Amino acid sequence: EDEAYFSSYGHYGIHEEMLKDKVRTESYRDFIYHNPDVFKDKTCKQTYLHKGLGSVFDMQAGNSQTFGRVKCHLLREAIDVTASLSALSVSPAQEVGSIHQSSCPSVLLSVTVSATQGYFLLFESMLDSVLYARDLYLSDSGSVYPDLCNISLAALGDRERHQDRIAFWEDVYGFDMACMKTAVVAEAVVEVVKADTLISEPTVIQTFDCNRVCLSELEFTSDFSLKITNTTECTAIVGYFDIFFDKGCSTKVMFSTGPQVTKTHWKQTVFLLEWPISVHAGEELQGKITVRKNKKDPRSLLVTFDLRDRKLTYSLQ
Amino acid sequence: EDEAYFSSYGHYGIHEEMLKDKVRTESYRDFIYHNPDVFKDKTCKQTYLHKGLGSVFDMQAGNSQTFGRVKCHLLREAIDVTASLSALSVSPAQEVGSIHQSSCPSVLLSVTVSATQGYFLLFESMLDSVLYARDLYLSDSGSVYPDLCNISLAALGDRERHQDRIAFWEDVYGFDMACMKTAVVAEAVVEVVKADTLISEPTVIQTFDCNRVCLSELEFTSDFSLKITNTTECTAIVGYFDIFFDKGCSTKVMFSTGPQVTKTHWKQTVFLLEWPISVHAGEELQGKITVRKNKKDPRSLLVTFDLRDRKLTYSLQ
Repeated sequence: EDEAYFSSYGHYGIHEEMLKDKVRTESYRDFIYHNPDVFKDKTCKQTYLHKGLGSVFDMQAGNSQTFGRVKCHLLREAIDVTASLSALSVSPAQEVGSIHQSSCPSVLLSVTVSATQGYFLLFESMLDSVLYARDLYLSDSGSVYPDLCNISLAALGDRERHQDRIAFWEDVYGFDMACMKTAVVAEAVVEVVKADTLISEPTVIQTFDCNRVCLSELEFTSDFSLKITNTTECTAIVGYFDIFFDKGCSTKVMFSTGPQVTKTHWKQTVFLLEWPISVHAGEELQGKITVRKNKKDPRSLLVTFDLRDRKLTYSLQ
Repeated sequence: EDEAYFSSYGHYGIHEEMLKDKVRTESYRDFIYHNPDVFKDKTCKQTYLHKGLGSVFDMQAGNSQTFGRVKCHLLREAIDVTASLSALSVSPAQEVGSIHQSSCPSVLLSVTVSATQGYFLLFESMLDSVLYARDLYLSDSGSVYPDLCNISLAALGDRERHQDRIAFWEDVYGFDMACMKTAVVAEAVVEVVKADTLISEPTVIQTFDCNRVCLSELEFTSDFSLKITNTTECTAIVGYFDIFFDKGCSTKVMFSTGPQVTKTHWKQTVFLLEWPISVHAGEELQGKITVRKNKKDPRSLLVTFDLRDRKLTYSLQ
């Protein structure tokens, strides 16, 4: 419904979209509000969330010694916003700048809360900066939140969408441009997938423990098996991620960016199959996925599927 | 309906979106197919359209001496596409590169067909490059197509959308961020406007004859009057443009990017009013609009409205 406003927002609008992602923002809020033990007696915390909202939640919860870092240099206004919150008696130590630019806190941090997930979790190497901050600023007994992240896959059967994206090129205003198909298919697409086009159970292909994982493990290969629920044609594989606030939490909080639940600003990531695969209800569709950074552009990802003797490589850029 | 696929396409996807804009593409095609006299005995033509489709239409219409320029350097494939169109016996002289980079044709052009309109027509100074090509490459008796462009305004009454964008900041997860409103409002938004939120007749505020207009005239001030059709609150002004293939055409062709007709990839441009204006059916809402380039970023536009003793400036960036 609200997708009817298919908008190109300006600079502020991007942050408005983030704030309006209730699934994400309320999960972060609930984690901070409902887990006082995580923050209790911690001398130093650091919170990343758009417009300093993480710091505001933090202060509201009584955690006054927060280093809020506003990652976007456009948002000097964020400082004014948090400073103007008259209901709060304390000001967070806001800094504008990315983690890479900012000066090191004078003491090591006990808790870091980061909201830096990319499309398909790993796009734009956003998780890299969490590990960077962890290794540089976190004390040995400190914790990163959210601490667990899953990446999942499922099979899609959506003939209509497949036609619209593939068969389209066979008749472009009367001209055959089929030679474009291969190039178009190889680009993974970030879009909202309708839950009724799912034709398998989802399967987790990778779990990261953000307190332990090292940078090289963010590139990986994983075998997977998708339990097919419909006898039909599989036209695409969909990928998404789930986020967990788990370690030492009395009230555990999680959210999913999958097509089965309320959409987030991450939507889902779709890997279209140029040639659909016939599948049968009850069948296990076996495959292997390899996720790696594009050496030519480390922000972008290369995702390769081995599926029924075919090797399919996609870029997410 | 197809907005449900609120996609972030990759590099090819952008061109896919353009090609799928039937309103635009079919208008160009119809102009070329149905106006042989415009092209007859013209020794040199130049056509800009995504994926060289302009050249293909041109060749199909029997105009073999076409210089097709593919403006996007990503699209070397476009050459293969047009070369592979086996139904056509001739190949267009395709060049990859922008008009500014490309070498000058050896003879002056008789006809130039350009598909270079930006949001609100003037965004990204796209019309500038048409005038640049005209002055450099077109013979004195030559013609630019499309030759006429209108920019229009209308009043909108959409309380729900206004609430979603403005009142939102008064309660962001329980916090008052109202100080963000002014910054957010000042950004014009490109989005699809529902026709049933129009509360005035549209009015043309500027017409450009692309064969005559000079660069400085693309910045202008214009008085306007909007005939209000509903007694309600005006929450925004919407802007859009219309395109005409007119000069010497036996079959005139036009298309509109307004909210009353099938949407195009340009959607509409919305200037939100922080404080809605009460209006009455039958009333003439008087105003003045000034459109100028942002000196700090010539691709972006600054649009100022004088409306009921208020001066409101928006950036489109």
